[in-house]
Amino acid sequence: MNVDECRSRFAAERHAYLATADRAAVPHLVPVTFAVVGSDEIAVAIDHKPKRVADPHRLRRIRNIVANPRVAFLADVYDEDWERLWWVRADASARVLDGGDERDRAVEELIERYPQYRAAPPAGPVLLARVDRWTGWSGRT
Amino acid sequence: MNVDECRSRFAAERHAYLATADRAAVPHLVPVTFAVVGSDEIAVAIDHKPKRVADPHRLRRIRNIVANPRVAFLADVYDEDWERLWWVRADASARVLDGGDERDRAVEELIERYPQYRAAPPAGPVLLARVDRWTGWSGRT
Repeated sequence: MNVDECRSRFAAERHAYLATADRAAVPHLVPVTFAVVGSDEIAVAIDHKPKRVADPHRLRRIRNIVANPRVAFLADVYDEDWERLWWVRADASARVLDGGDERDRAVEELIERYPQYRAAPPAGPVLLARVDRWTGWSGRT
Repeated sequence: MNVDECRSRFAAERHAYLATADRAAVPHLVPVTFAVVGSDEIAVAIDHKPKRVADPHRLRRIRNIVANPRVAFLADVYDEDWERLWWVRADASARVLDGGDERDRAVEELIERYPQYRAAPPAGPVLLARVDRWTGWSGRT
């Protein structure tokens, strides 16, 4: 699967997975909603229950990214016909944006993409990850 | 979500995600089929295209686990009604089993669970992960 196909398949999915790791290399894994911003950035809002914590910087995904920006995203489709499986992984470096234009633009993209955010726009920090490698695999190939 | 519910929801899912990290704390993420063995072990076969590589020990998930046994699994259900979202994460320590009774029993569980494996049983190594923490979240709660 070439890079363009990886990017377009990933961007079209409604949810993905985010792996982070702390400095001791202990991995952490959460499902995320996201928007691809431009061609190679992925934005994730910290907004949803139970993430409505008093201080989102206590969340492990945020602590991990602050300590270690390397992250991996995965989007995939599972099917009992394993010839129909595919996945796309984005290896990236992430930052935590607490405010500013870049955060606000990312939030706009997220609201555009998810009607669910319109009623309650993400108010907290945004993770913005720059993808340095797209990798994909499909059972059909 | 209590531990029993986490375990039973996870065990009933047909696929999950596996995060590993190398010693430099770079995370890696792949979708996996799996079986829960006993109450707190998760078995994953290395068997499926494109994992039919000449030497499966060259795969990043295996290299990472050999270098750093800490892993995280996640199973979830996405729904556009975000009240229906849920996920379960299993934080675990994994080993790579190249052969032996423990590997063979895990393969039997995988074959039992996935008819897809019956025609072509997993022939390579098996990852066996001992879960030390189940964590779950549901949008309904």
